[in-house]
Parts: sequence; C-alpha cells; structure tokens
Amino acid sequence: MTAALKFTALFLTLGFCQAQYNYIDEEVEGAFQASKYGSLWPLPQKVQLSQVSLKVTSFSFRIVDSKESSAGPSCTLLQSAYRRYYEYMFGSAKKQGPTKNRRADLSELTELQVWITSPDSECDGYPALTSDESYELSVDQPVAVLKAPKVWGALHGLETFSQLLYEDEFGAKNINSTMISDFPRFPHRGILLDSSRHFLPIKVILANLETMAWNKFNVFHWHIVDDQSFPYLSRTFPQLSQQGAYHPYTHVYTPADVKMVIEFARLRGIRVVPEFDTPGHTQSWGKGQKDLLTPCYTGSKPSGTFGPVNPILNTTYDFMTQFFKEISTVFPDGYVHLGGDEVDFTCWKSNPDIQKFMEQQGFGQDYKKLESFYIQKLLDIVTTTKKGYTIWQEVFDNGVKLKPDTVVHVWIGSGSNQEMSKVTAAGYNTILSSPWYLDYISYAQDWQKYYRVEPLNFNGTEDQKKLVIGGEACLWGEYVDATNLTPRLWPRASAVAERLWSSKDVTDIDDAFNRLSVHRCRMVARGIPAEPLFSSFCPREYKGI
Amino acid sequence: MTAALKFTALFLTLGFCQAQYNYIDEEVEGAFQASKYGSLWPLPQKVQLSQVSLKVTSFSFRIVDSKESSAGPSCTLLQSAYRRYYEYMFGSAKKQGPTKNRRADLSELTELQVWITSPDSECDGYPALTSDESYELSVDQPVAVLKAPKVWGALHGLETFSQLLYEDEFGAKNINSTMISDFPRFPHRGILLDSSRHFLPIKVILANLETMAWNKFNVFHWHIVDDQSFPYLSRTFPQLSQQGAYHPYTHVYTPADVKMVIEFARLRGIRVVPEFDTPGHTQSWGKGQKDLLTPCYTGSKPSGTFGPVNPILNTTYDFMTQFFKEISTVFPDGYVHLGGDEVDFTCWKSNPDIQKFMEQQGFGQDYKKLESFYIQKLLDIVTTTKKGYTIWQEVFDNGVKLKPDTVVHVWIGSGSNQEMSKVTAAGYNTILSSPWYLDYISYAQDWQKYYRVEPLNFNGTEDQKKLVIGGEACLWGEYVDATNLTPRLWPRASAVAERLWSSKDVTDIDDAFNRLSVHRCRMVARGIPAEPLFSSFCPREYKGI
Repeated sequence: MTAALKFTALFLTLGFCQAQYNYIDEEVEGAFQASKYGSLWPLPQKVQLSQVSLKVTSFSFRIVDSKESSAGPSCTLLQSAYRRYYEYMFGSAKKQGPTKNRRADLSELTELQVWITSPDSECDGYPALTSDESYELSVDQPVAVLKAPKVWGALHGLETFSQLLYEDEFGAKNINSTMISDFPRFPHRGILLDSSRHFLPIKVILANLETMAWNKFNVFHWHIVDDQSFPYLSRTFPQLSQQGAYHPYTHVYTPADVKMVIEFARLRGIRVVPEFDTPGHTQSWGKGQKDLLTPCYTGSKPSGTFGPVNPILNTTYDFMTQFFKEISTVFPDGYVHLGGDEVDFTCWKSNPDIQKFMEQQGFGQDYKKLESFYIQKLLDIVTTTKKGYTIWQEVFDNGVKLKPDTVVHVWIGSGSNQEMSKVTAAGYNTILSSPWYLDYISYAQDWQKYYRVEPLNFNGTEDQKKLVIGGEACLWGEYVDATNLTPRLWPRASAVAERLWSSKDVTDIDDAFNRLSVHRCRMVARGIPAEPLFSSFCPREYKGI
Repeated sequence: MTAALKFTALFLTLGFCQAQYNYIDEEVEGAFQASKYGSLWPLPQKVQLSQVSLKVTSFSFRIVDSKESSAGPSCTLLQSAYRRYYEYMFGSAKKQGPTKNRRADLSELTELQVWITSPDSECDGYPALTSDESYELSVDQPVAVLKAPKVWGALHGLETFSQLLYEDEFGAKNINSTMISDFPRFPHRGILLDSSRHFLPIKVILANLETMAWNKFNVFHWHIVDDQSFPYLSRTFPQLSQQGAYHPYTHVYTPADVKMVIEFARLRGIRVVPEFDTPGHTQSWGKGQKDLLTPCYTGSKPSGTFGPVNPILNTTYDFMTQFFKEISTVFPDGYVHLGGDEVDFTCWKSNPDIQKFMEQQGFGQDYKKLESFYIQKLLDIVTTTKKGYTIWQEVFDNGVKLKPDTVVHVWIGSGSNQEMSKVTAAGYNTILSSPWYLDYISYAQDWQKYYRVEPLNFNGTEDQKKLVIGGEACLWGEYVDATNLTPRLWPRASAVAERLWSSKDVTDIDDAFNRLSVHRCRMVARGIPAEPLFSSFCPREYKGI
C-alpha cells in the first residue's frame, strides 16, 4: 500500500514556529527551531516522514472502525476516543461546509481507519502490565490506517495521529504522508500523585489523567492516604475518612469518585495502582481506627502520641485482612502498592509491650526484624486477595520474603545504580523513581536532568536489565495542591514519558527541546496549564489564570 | 466611642483551623495554629482585638458613605470597592432574608461607614508615591467606622475589614470588636511582571492586580518590553509591535488594553509604572525601527546582527523624544522606569563608527562613558515630559548625572547592603529588589527567606535610611506565563508585602506562618490559585486546574 511512496525526512512546516531572530543575544538564542520530527512526543520507535502533505478538514474527515476490526461501534472505549481526538484536532464545534456531495480533493485525507487486529480487542477490559500497547500508523491518500492488536495500542496511535496534524500559513490543517511503527520501551510508565498532604479535587486528578494519556503514561500510582489525611472513603471502615480526612465530606473520595477515576483512566489506557502505605505513614489511620497504631511511651507511661501500625496485636491483622479485601475489589488492577518505606522505630522502642514481644520472638534489638514480621504477615494477607504487590525498596532491603512477581520500587539515591543492581540480581521486577522526584524544584530547565537519565545504566547482566519494567515520576504533595500541581507536573513529567517510551538512543536534547516546546503548547491549547520551558510563546495561550 | 470597651488580645476562633494532631510526626507538626491576629495580612501597625464578637449577615449588612465623608455616591472608586468587598465577604448572590422591618440583633454589626476625612478625597485621581494611605478602623456595635484622609487609605481599610470576618462553627459570619490604626512603613511596595519573555494575557495581569490589592501592594512595575518581544502597541510607532511582538494581533497590548490595566489598578490604589529599558534589552525594538540598534561587525564587515541602541545617531534621540512623549501621555504615573541595566559592550566595540565616535568624544576605551552619554541624553529627553524616572542601579554606578528625585532600583547582590549605603549616601531615593527575585525558585518554604529581609539593614545614617522608599518583588518572565505565574507569585510575594507594609518589629516567623496560611486560603476562596505553604487544606479548595 505504501511501498510506492518514497519517504524522506523533511522539516515539517510547523504552524507555530517561533519567530526567528537575527540578533545576537544569549537569551534569545533559546528560541526553538522546528524538529524534523515535528511535535511528536514521546518519539515513536520508527518514523518515516514524507514531503507529501495532505489536507484534513473538519467537515469531511472521519475516524472510523475498519471493516476488519475486531472492535466495532459497541466498543465505547474507542468511540469515546474518536470523539475526543476529533475535538482535539478540530475543536468541539463541528464546522458547517459543503459536505455530502463534495468530492474529496486529490490531496486530502478523509479518513482514519482504526483496525484492531487481534480477535480480542480488550475493549471492555482493563489495561495491565502485560498489555500489548503497540500500533502501526500509515497516513496515506485517501485514508490513513491505524493497526493495533489491542485497543491500548489504538489509543496511543490516535494520540500520535493527532500530533502529526499541523496548520499551514492559511490556518488549514495538514498532515504529511507518514509511516509509524511504535511500541513502548518499558511497560510500566507511571505518575505518582499524593492526595494526602493536600487533597486533590477529582477534577484535578481527571485533568492529569487526560494529560498522562497525551504523554503515553499508563500507570496512575495513587498515593491516596498518608500521615496527613485519609481521604479514601472505605465502605468497611467509614470512620477512617470520617475522622482521618481533612474534612469528612468535602475532602474525601467516595466509592463513586474512585470508580469514576478508574473508568476515566481505563478509557485512556491507564492503570490505577492505589498505595496504602503501612506500617509507617499512617498517622491519619489512627484517628478512625482505635488500637491500630502503637502507643508511644515516655518512661513508663503512654505519652498520648502514636507511632507506626501496632504489629503485635491480632486485631491489626484482622483489620488489614478486611481492609485489603475491600481494596482488592474496589481497584481492579492486578497490583496494589503496599508502601513499607521510612518506618521510624522510636515509638516501637518506647513501648514495653513491643519490647516484650521482641524478646519473645527472639528479635533482640533488631527492629527491622519486627518490621519484616509485620510486612510478611501483610503480604500473606494481600496474597489471599489474588493481587500482586509493589513495595518501596526498604522492604526488599530488610530481607522480607517476597513473591517472585513482586515489584520493587526504587526511590533512594540519586542514580540508585547499586540498588537497581541488587534488586534485579535477586530476580525481582523493579521500577525506578529516584531520579524523578518532581516535587523537588529548581530554577531553569530541570526537565533536561530528568530526560538525561538512562534507567538501565547500572551494573548487571542482560537478564537483570530485562527486570526493569519501567519507572514513575513522583510528585509528592507537601507543596502542591489544585493551585499549582498541573503546571508543576507538565511538561516536566513529559521528559520522563519520552525516556520510558522511546528508544534508548533518543537522547538529542536540542531536538527534544524543539519537539517538547510544541508539545507543551499543544497541551496548553487543549486546556492544560503546562508551564513554559523558556522564553517563547504559544499561538493559543492558556485561558485561565 | 470605643473608650468604654476593654480590648484584650484573644485567640480568634477561626472558622478554618486545621485539625489538630495528637501524634508525633515531624511532617504533621507543620500544621498551622490560630494566630491571635487571625488572618490579618499584612499585619496593621496597631491592632487592638476584643473578645466581643458581633454577627454580620448578608441581608442586613451594608457598606455606606459616612454622612461627613468628602466622598459621596459619585465616587465610583469607592462604590466599586464596596460592591467588591461585599462580594468577597458574602459571595455574589445576595441572600433573601427578613430584611426591612427586622430589628438588628443586639450583638449584630449592620453597617460599615466609610468616612473620607480630607476635603479632597482624591477619588478621581491617581495614586502616587506621596499618597496618604493611612486609615483607622473601629469595629463596634452597631456600626463600624472606617476613617481615612484619602480614598487610598479607605481601600486598604476595606481589605482589612474583610480580613477580620470569620465563620463560627455554624457557618455564620462574625467579626470581633476591633480597633486598628494603620499606615504603610514604606510608600513604594511593588511587583514587577515581565510581559516580554512571555506574553501575559490581560486577564492574568488584572487577576494579579486584584491580588496585589489584597496584599496592600501599590505599584505595578510593568516590564512591558525586552529583547524577546515588544507587545506594547505604540500609536506613534506601530511597527514596533507589528514587527517586534510575538504576534502582531494576539500578543500585543492595545491602547485600550493599557488604559484598562491602568484604570483597574487605579480603582485598587495601585500605580502602574511602565519600564522601557534601553539601551540594552532592546533586540525586539530593532525589528520595527530601522537603524535604532547598533550594527555589529565581524572584522570590517557588518555581521548582520545588532547590539544595544545606537548612541551616536541623532535619529536615535529623535525617536526617543517622540516615543517617550507618547509614553508620558499614555501612563499617568509620575514615574517611568528607564532600565539601563546589563549593557553588553561587545557589539559597540566591534563597530568602526562607534570607535570613531569614542575617539572624537575622548572616551578612550571606556564604554561606560558611551553608555552614560546615551543615558544622559535620554534622561534629559524624559525630563522634558515632566516625568520622574527610575533607573536600575548600573546607571547610578556609572556616574550618570541624575535629577535629585531619581529613584535608583537596587537589584544586584544578595543583600545589597553596600549598594544601598552608596545610593543613599549620594542622596537618592532607592527601592530594593535584590533579595526578592521571585523567579528563582527552590524546594520548600522560600517565602521565609523573603520575609526575613530587613530593607534598612545597611550601614548608613538615619537620613540615609529615610531615602529607602520601599521595594519590589520581581517575577521575571523566562519561566513563567499564564500557566504558572499566579501560583508562583502568591503567596510568596505576600511575604514581601508584609515586610514593606508592617512595622519593622513584625518578624515572628511562626505567627507569620499561621496568618499567611489562612490568608492564602482566603486568596484561594476568592478565586486565585495561591499555592500552599505546606501540607494542609483549605475549606474551599481552588476550583480550577
């Protein structure tokens, strides 16, 4: 079909190249140039661009199911995506024009056919770690064809297709004949948001899920509760949010909210992995669940303050059993994140009952053994819910016995090369976050720092490297809420997105700057306040404040 | 009137105290407490709070002109302010209730009378460096009285009054009997916004002017053009923005836009001081004004690039005369900022005509003399427009002859103590910005750093210190635009606001944290995305994304 066309690389005439300067000025030199790859972000694995440009008009262009597709009009996931991408490309108001009997121009693209090639499209399923996200996109006259084994690849292909559109000098939409074959380098590409330090309104979560999809992220790691607040409304233990949320009505996620988030994410190929971090980071749990936390002592008397989850009471494990049974039904994903980080032993050490228990168990003064004792029992509980689990690296470091399919989440250290070596040498799947703590901000273009990370840059065999299933950009919530989260996340997280999706050799920082500059303006045009990389402008500036 | 009441300090029961924790956790300890000064920000000079609380209801409360006031219903500035503050306090929907014949409750406040005491209220004037901004506020049953010599003080008093309101546990609005006597420590309290590195939509500028008023800032330093773009649409030289703006239609400020900004600011007691920085920072000027900039040379040939304004041509001064004549009529403020910073001599040095001129003038190789030659002529031009001028510190450092009423803007150095000493020793008014470059961001609570600055902490006599007329928080535009400017500015700039308004001894950082936490939630409730100080919540979270 496309063999007859000669594809050559070319400079796409972007509709919104920045004005070029002929003056000397250090600052002005930051202005971006057009990349030969236009505004594709993250860069697909294989791209062949031609110079043949085709017109695309809102009144004749359609996105349709291919006749051979295993997903038809009943696949609401795809139908919703068609509507969404049509809007991104042409705006929501469908223009009137000489429709029905108008012949397509010789150089016009009138259709994008979406063809799900596998018998099971997975249209009504949930995305998973093992989902096939690949797709092939061929843009040619008179129709473009998007082939993907599953709907997940089709979603990515639709985004890529929308990124190929550009405006010519008359404001008309164009697309060049293009062939793309694409798949992710890593299957786990996540964003961590923290709804405990600050409550994040549902609207903010949904807007960021939407933006994640534009960047081909596929995991929303929902750090939903922590010391500061417990906004998750549990059906089994409603007192947890009743007492532990910042406000029991205005600052909670109801079961309906959670369901909506999960479905919104599913429609965009995004998994929702909730984190319920124990035994530390649980101050807010204690307010609604009596005796769950360890009473701290001053000398021989309880001080009135509380420490981590109390690991020596049977009631603790009864609670966890019921709680995680609920979680396993509320969240459909195959994994739950169990935390396990930063356990402070001070309170445990102060408590005489804990001391006695340590003695009975023969733990000596090694409180890591007590921590492991707790985690081991918790993992057994969660295993009975048929879920896999992810844990922060301390759990692995402390030698807790883990199931072979456990995912170890590396977060300590700047490069964490050693930790990655250790975890993969032990045979565990691992995800990397240590270089991607986006809550740490600094002046100027820190996206470049995130972009330059190479996740497999550690000592290890090829087999070890295969155990790195991806990474996550973490935006912890101490200093972000609805007022500043979105511009702080985007486009900084986009740098991580390309690192996790594109080929290892996509490392040209100048080309990345050029593509990302336009990609960020596209996010702005779609209504998301993605902050600027440097002095510049967008043809359509953000409309909010 | 109020002598009969005993005023004692008390802990105001804030409607939105954060839930208090009884647990030990370092992070949780950041939660704020109620300040005895409630959420007053910036803290007035004298505050006496009583324990007597009065109800305030939307259906019976009114803000009215006092009978003795020199400003009546024809003073639209005050009438607009009454409407605005009524909305802030009660929301825009006026509630129905048992109005007319309902007797006021014994413990109800039904009126705030605003009394302009000076014969000339300045209602139709513009605020100025010498404006009287003082006010006295007495809240007592059955009416509160706000006395101010001029409307400018009344505006500040209205803001303060609105900050005294709080909700009790039933959601009812209350205010405590209070006496406040207030005036600013410094008369120049500014914010610099930069609309050249990124174009700032008018909506963003207006929203931030509004927020400035809530923080009692009174100068908008509009760094309107620079190297990157020239968005100011000049009636005299329309080619400047036609060629030099990012876009000649969508990214310019029309005369109507500028007029609107100035009037919006005036209604809030804010001066608009435009900056047209020359001879450096002018790359964008050169695109629409032939021969204005110096042609740079490579060897004996023009390189095609351009440097600073060409100081050796008569046409340059003809242009500046016409241009600043226009500026002096468009901007009513008594001052214009003429820039004069960061002049790079490389291009001047390369140009043979400049070299010849240097020789003729006997400047030797001292290009600072050439810079001063230019600035001197510019200052003379601007003097004929009857404007005062502000210049960046380099102009002073280079020994340019300045009018006695020149304001020197100090921006170099971390504390800039030496520079402040030098400038004031020379007898010039000075404004401080070097510690308040808010474009530089860092992790965690950098507002504290801005708050801890003491502007008069330099070696000098009392007379020298009197020459410090204030300061400005500068948010340069390389990394901010409509997407992130507002949360990056607030509440960080609020720290500068209190430093410039309140008494020198207001330095308690914990009390500041407590008041500022609530002040920032008030800004959020009024629709501005002011970012959080730390883990916490607002009763009304930001509704946008």
